[in-house]
Amino acid sequence: MRKILLASVLSACLTAFIPAAEAAPPPAAPQTPADIVAKAPAAEWKRIAPSDLLIMDLAADAAGHTRRVVIQLMPAPFSQGWVGNIRKLVAARWYDGIAVVRVQDNYVVQWGDPDGETPGKAKPLPKGLAPVPQSEYVAPARGLPKDASGGGDAYAPRNGFSAGWPIAGDEQASWPIHCYGMVGVGRNMAPDTGTGAELYVVNGQAPRQLDRNVALVGRVISGMEHLSALPRGTGDMGFYKTAQERVPILSVRMGNEVPGLPGYEYLSTESQSFAAYADKRANRKDDFYIQPAGGVDVCNVPVPIREVM
Amino acid sequence: MRKILLASVLSACLTAFIPAAEAAPPPAAPQTPADIVAKAPAAEWKRIAPSDLLIMDLAADAAGHTRRVVIQLMPAPFSQGWVGNIRKLVAARWYDGIAVVRVQDNYVVQWGDPDGETPGKAKPLPKGLAPVPQSEYVAPARGLPKDASGGGDAYAPRNGFSAGWPIAGDEQASWPIHCYGMVGVGRNMAPDTGTGAELYVVNGQAPRQLDRNVALVGRVISGMEHLSALPRGTGDMGFYKTAQERVPILSVRMGNEVPGLPGYEYLSTESQSFAAYADKRANRKDDFYIQPAGGVDVCNVPVPIREVM
Repeated sequence: MRKILLASVLSACLTAFIPAAEAAPPPAAPQTPADIVAKAPAAEWKRIAPSDLLIMDLAADAAGHTRRVVIQLMPAPFSQGWVGNIRKLVAARWYDGIAVVRVQDNYVVQWGDPDGETPGKAKPLPKGLAPVPQSEYVAPARGLPKDASGGGDAYAPRNGFSAGWPIAGDEQASWPIHCYGMVGVGRNMAPDTGTGAELYVVNGQAPRQLDRNVALVGRVISGMEHLSALPRGTGDMGFYKTAQERVPILSVRMGNEVPGLPGYEYLSTESQSFAAYADKRANRKDDFYIQPAGGVDVCNVPVPIREVM
Repeated sequence: MRKILLASVLSACLTAFIPAAEAAPPPAAPQTPADIVAKAPAAEWKRIAPSDLLIMDLAADAAGHTRRVVIQLMPAPFSQGWVGNIRKLVAARWYDGIAVVRVQDNYVVQWGDPDGETPGKAKPLPKGLAPVPQSEYVAPARGLPKDASGGGDAYAPRNGFSAGWPIAGDEQASWPIHCYGMVGVGRNMAPDTGTGAELYVVNGQAPRQLDRNVALVGRVISGMEHLSALPRGTGDMGFYKTAQERVPILSVRMGNEVPGLPGYEYLSTESQSFAAYADKRANRKDDFYIQPAGGVDVCNVPVPIREVM
């Protein structure tokens, strides 16, 4: 069984009264982005190594439903110091028992140690975590992404996709982009204070002002709805005011530690189908669309991810 | 009592381990966008007429908490045909008893008549609704907005703010922008099929491909969290599969019909403070930020809204 996971490429049929941005067309209709993805040959799909996946199980919801979030870790050359720390935190089972502590609407959902700021009560971190320098926010400019989003934007002279990820850049450096679903490292005021013990995910309009100011270490590829649909916190910046509001994290494991985990694949951003998909995202002209935009924001071209049994 | 409503300008103090995009600074820190908004003189705040507000009360949540959503209707010259229909639907109490029927992650939350597509079961529409031509998706180009977001973007040669709203444009026309929280008119395949009886709100990355393809008629200015935090639908395109999943809408009234409603104000987008706020959104350099972006997306400059008692 195969299932396209991204909500934006999930739909399978047209329904009346909806802006059917991703609906598959009737036979005679022009191609939609979803249609292009559905027809992409197997060779264009790339398997994500289970050892690069974080499997985060939240406590069951009020109705008793399990809540699993799958996060793909960022590959080199970006943020590898933090990614290394995260692997150590998982190995030490440090994340087990922490909680989602903050949900700010149209900004971020954040999880970590609720007592992390309380001397004496903070959960001790495992040995061997490395402080990571600010320089790891970016990588050398070589390998700037092939542009896939109509050129630069307000935040960077160039942006596009490389090895399955949205990347921005200039002549000096490249850096990952804060798109919806991207996972980053919470930190204190100093740029090198983030260890990876506190993480957040973008749940709204891309907060690109965070690019190069905070480390991005991955993205949610399954179960985003378990985080994005959580009640918003009513404290400052969306922090939950009470312990009862927090959502316990039962465990975080690497994908290769989880028996029976499905396989996950992304559509190669260097493939012909991805190029056609991105172009169609920029130029919708099908049964529903009457005015193609002629362009598209890099964060409005979600990299297609699918589950393979 | 005064309260800044937008989550992005809600925070009042710094907390460790967070990307504090909108946190107010300690006394010695450089100004933040939230700080600029907090210091804006009273004369720069514009009252929103209660007669331009939709007050939508959802059924109470599982814990018995009331859920009120406040929507500001779009002013002329945009979408006035649909806005007129919406006023007639409110006057006829047509929205009372319909429901939220769709929540698609990172796209839209939609409400309407669950039986709207079922001949014989569809709730009859009031007399006098006017079919609105596609031409009302845009307005003549005169009065193109003063640019407030670093020029054009992938979707339009120009964009910015006009009379409190995010607006895009070219030399021929202007049109409102699908930013987070903007409310639009669901329609069928034909461009003139949307009556205003089916509405949606953007709950993720701005789906700008819908600009000029669907009518925008307003924006949520309070209570967005009651829609954005709803469980995502598991049907095609996020539609709820069962009637039990739908969220009943108890009533929709115009603001001037609701006793004791607080006043709502927006920061004039033609004001000095708004210009300074937008510039600071594009150039964050305070205790937390080390690398200003130098630009900002028009949908990442939420127009500050506040409640005044």
